[in-house]
Amino acid sequence: MQSITSELVHQTIRRRPAESHKGTYGRVMLIGGNQNFGGAIIMAATAAIYSGAGLVTVATDLVNLTSLHAQLPEAMVVDYHQTAMMTQLLKTMDVIVIGPGLGTDQFAARLLTTVLAQVQPQQRVVIDGSALTLLATRTQPLPAAQIVVTPHQMEWQRLSGLKIADQTPTANHLAQQRLGVTAIVKAHHTTVYTTDRVWFNPGGTPAMATGGMGDTLAGMIGGFTAQFKDFTNAILSAVYLHSEIADDLAQARYVVLPHQISAEIPKYMHRYSLN
Amino acid sequence: MQSITSELVHQTIRRRPAESHKGTYGRVMLIGGNQNFGGAIIMAATAAIYSGAGLVTVATDLVNLTSLHAQLPEAMVVDYHQTAMMTQLLKTMDVIVIGPGLGTDQFAARLLTTVLAQVQPQQRVVIDGSALTLLATRTQPLPAAQIVVTPHQMEWQRLSGLKIADQTPTANHLAQQRLGVTAIVKAHHTTVYTTDRVWFNPGGTPAMATGGMGDTLAGMIGGFTAQFKDFTNAILSAVYLHSEIADDLAQARYVVLPHQISAEIPKYMHRYSLN
Amino acid sequence: MQSITSELVHQTIRRRPAESHKGTYGRVMLIGGNQNFGGAIIMAATAAIYSGAGLVTVATDLVNLTSLHAQLPEAMVVDYHQTAMMTQLLKTMDVIVIGPGLGTDQFAARLLTTVLAQVQPQQRVVIDGSALTLLATRTQPLPAAQIVVTPHQMEWQRLSGLKIADQTPTANHLAQQRLGVTAIVKAHHTTVYTTDRVWFNPGGTPAMATGGMGDTLAGMIGGFTAQFKDFTNAILSAVYLHSEIADDLAQARYVVLPHQISAEIPKYMHRYSLN
Amino acid sequence: MQSITSELVHQTIRRRPAESHKGTYGRVMLIGGNQNFGGAIIMAATAAIYSGAGLVTVATDLVNLTSLHAQLPEAMVVDYHQTAMMTQLLKTMDVIVIGPGLGTDQFAARLLTTVLAQVQPQQRVVIDGSALTLLATRTQPLPAAQIVVTPHQMEWQRLSGLKIADQTPTANHLAQQRLGVTAIVKAHHTTVYTTDRVWFNPGGTPAMATGGMGDTLAGMIGGFTAQFKDFTNAILSAVYLHSEIADDLAQARYVVLPHQISAEIPKYMHRYSLN
Repeated sequence: MQSITSELVHQTIRRRPAESHKGTYGRVMLIGGNQNFGGAIIMAATAAIYSGAGLVTVATDLVNLTSLHAQLPEAMVVDYHQTAMMTQLLKTMDVIVIGPGLGTDQFAARLLTTVLAQVQPQQRVVIDGSALTLLATRTQPLPAAQIVVTPHQMEWQRLSGLKIADQTPTANHLAQQRLGVTAIVKAHHTTVYTTDRVWFNPGGTPAMATGGMGDTLAGMIGGFTAQFKDFTNAILSAVYLHSEIADDLAQARYVVLPHQISAEIPKYMHRYSLN
Repeated sequence: MQSITSELVHQTIRRRPAESHKGTYGRVMLIGGNQNFGGAIIMAATAAIYSGAGLVTVATDLVNLTSLHAQLPEAMVVDYHQTAMMTQLLKTMDVIVIGPGLGTDQFAARLLTTVLAQVQPQQRVVIDGSALTLLATRTQPLPAAQIVVTPHQMEWQRLSGLKIADQTPTANHLAQQRLGVTAIVKAHHTTVYTTDRVWFNPGGTPAMATGGMGDTLAGMIGGFTAQFKDFTNAILSAVYLHSEIADDLAQARYVVLPHQISAEIPKYMHRYSLN
Repeated sequence: MQSITSELVHQTIRRRPAESHKGTYGRVMLIGGNQNFGGAIIMAATAAIYSGAGLVTVATDLVNLTSLHAQLPEAMVVDYHQTAMMTQLLKTMDVIVIGPGLGTDQFAARLLTTVLAQVQPQQRVVIDGSALTLLATRTQPLPAAQIVVTPHQMEWQRLSGLKIADQTPTANHLAQQRLGVTAIVKAHHTTVYTTDRVWFNPGGTPAMATGGMGDTLAGMIGGFTAQFKDFTNAILSAVYLHSEIADDLAQARYVVLPHQISAEIPKYMHRYSLN
Repeated sequence: MQSITSELVHQTIRRRPAESHKGTYGRVMLIGGNQNFGGAIIMAATAAIYSGAGLVTVATDLVNLTSLHAQLPEAMVVDYHQTAMMTQLLKTMDVIVIGPGLGTDQFAARLLTTVLAQVQPQQRVVIDGSALTLLATRTQPLPAAQIVVTPHQMEWQRLSGLKIADQTPTANHLAQQRLGVTAIVKAHHTTVYTTDRVWFNPGGTPAMATGGMGDTLAGMIGGFTAQFKDFTNAILSAVYLHSEIADDLAQARYVVLPHQISAEIPKYMHRYSLN
């Protein structure tokens, strides 16, 4: 087991090239937010945009259109019921984040299936939140693409079949090999499983134990994997920074709210990008 | 009559255990917000989330969905007209706050009855705002649970039968014994009545005399009782901190607005949690 | 012509009595905001609440409900088409502000007539914005109450019949005597006309020349007249403070936005309230 | 090719005359924002208002009404489907900004045609975003008025017929002469083409490469051309300031968000307005 280091983050987040434009920093679609859990997709999209993704589209129930734009006019929006438009847009994306506030009803299950069926090999996919619960009941194979899942321990139990007490690094790594995707198992100290390694995140604080914290991480991973070429390093850097910011804010706060983390992302990324 | 002290607050708000998750800090449902008073449930939910409650669900008229999420994406939302979903969710809650902006029409009265009928002994209930007016006209007994009511003096008159001029600590305490619930009687200096004691809150400022201040206190009590085991101490700490923050803000403000108090809660709680 | 002085403001804004509650600081209803000009009533209500009014209700087209609550949960809302509820609520108000974003169509004209017909002698009324244009075409007498109108020079031309070039203090004062209401004529240096005197406001900056500035002043007058007994002094203090805050903000800003003024009101009032 | 200088900006942004009012600083209508791209017109309108435009009206799909007013109550709103009202309002405008989030469907094309057909010689027109794509397919001549287009390199390719690799200053200038409108070609270093000159903007940072940055520039140009008499200098000053603010914010941020630029505009303009 290897610790994620600030050095790894520093090597990942590089100074942006002068000759570049929005497209250079990736197109991200975040899919989720039903009538009950619309806040989740707002928090995820906020994190993606503050992470520097070039162009962010939110595919959601339109009941969330106004609350999203009221705080994040930078996002574009599409009704996730409009299959034709979704299909057309999905093709143009570099990264797809699916799950925050998606729910687990039949529509959500169908949407997950539709989206995964269209994923192309060069795309990156972040599967989070409700989509993990749905994933645990699916029998179809996952598409050939760069995929990362972000379960907390209970969701990991559903996905891996490992009870929480049995979720040792070794057992988790074996489960990850079976699933064939990068796995982030969120806990007090989060661990990340890739094909060839087990990573340990040194940060984290109980001040993060509040609703929406995972949605924010999923959005950050969306933003980081849209910009940084090495998929694993992009993921590890997002995990590290998410908890580093929380740790710093928790120096003066009993609870850290998700939007407070997002607001800090550009400053932290700037510092890591300096030589 | 005993003064609430900063020492009591300090003993209540403890450093969070490292091994913990959202569930550790409680599930809170806040019920209220009709078409006219939607702001009340937004202010209450804001206070609950900034107090550190793990998972917060707002049960309201969906007319309030967007304004809530536009400023508080951290909250989940359910339509309070959907009886089946309400029933299912209520079972999973640690704390129920009912009343802010609920109104006093027939629907509100029915909803209060439905909710109270489902309360389980291990749950904690905060009855506030319009629900207190409704409570005063009810004849059914209150459910066996840990209940706190938060009337201002006029609401206490309706609830206790005591005219404002007659609301002495002794008379209030006798009324509280009859009602069998913890009672917070809000006034310039708020008093709190439990089975065995009368508490006096030393703080408070006329800069708090503005709409929404009580909704914020109700939300704080929701958040505190979700996290801290001793019901009475959780309540007393919320009352104390609510006015302490207001007193501090009023050092430089003629009027203190409810959302300004909520924004400060995490910092104050952090300070009390230090050894 | 007499200058409004900081001394007058200081004598008006007094330290709040400890024994007081929301009702002590007045009930204000702000009426306005159609589908095109909803922002005006939001800005007016924001100013009223930040001025310390105890309880603020906004009567508006419900199309504005969500945008209002998204930034000002402290306000209560009523549909201004619901005549019965409006009538019932109007009776309970200390101050009525009518006009910001009301528009000048038939509904607006009817609403103004309905509201003015219900005004009671002890109530205070602020007539602003579109309502001034409507007022200029009315033939019915104004109700017996404490009324203030807040025209800019073009609106004053419509109301008084005086062309802008002819709006000298003497001519304005004669027109005010005819109308029988306090008149604030907004210009670079605003003048205020009461039965026995002409007041001159020393402050004011071209950085205030932006949409919504008048709505903010109307809301402040609503808040001030709700709290301070002397009607004239309350009005003069609102006029003075509105421009004093703007002058200060303009030290570092080319344009001052209305919401920036409102955010400062509690601090300025606090300073004036000190001995 | 001549560099835009801070001296030019200083000569353009003058201290405001004391005797002035909202009308002095111009009436601006911003047209755009469909169901998917509503955020764009919000960001453009925010920039116009923070630039000091006197009166700003947003013509949009009403689906965007609430999210706009939730953050920008200073803007007035009109449904861009209401042809009669649009026609009436357009006549009163000093500046028209068309394009941010307009989309490229049939309705958008028709609206662009309708608006351009009504433009009067003394009006100023900013054509941005989707409207540039529509413009590239039109055959009708542009109206006689002061017009500026704001393409990024790909949009300029569509508009000028020049492939990105061929977009040299000389080729661009020839294309501009053909089109007969001022052209801002947005790139790492933006160039501006007027009838008699080619301007080079010295500022700009890859931290600006995020969605909404162009909408913000379009809104600033709307605000600046509404206030400052010399059309070219107003445009050049907006271009210069937009990137100067971004450069400054990027000293501490990996990505600069559009609304962060708008928030700074009044302070920067103030500094330039000093002698």
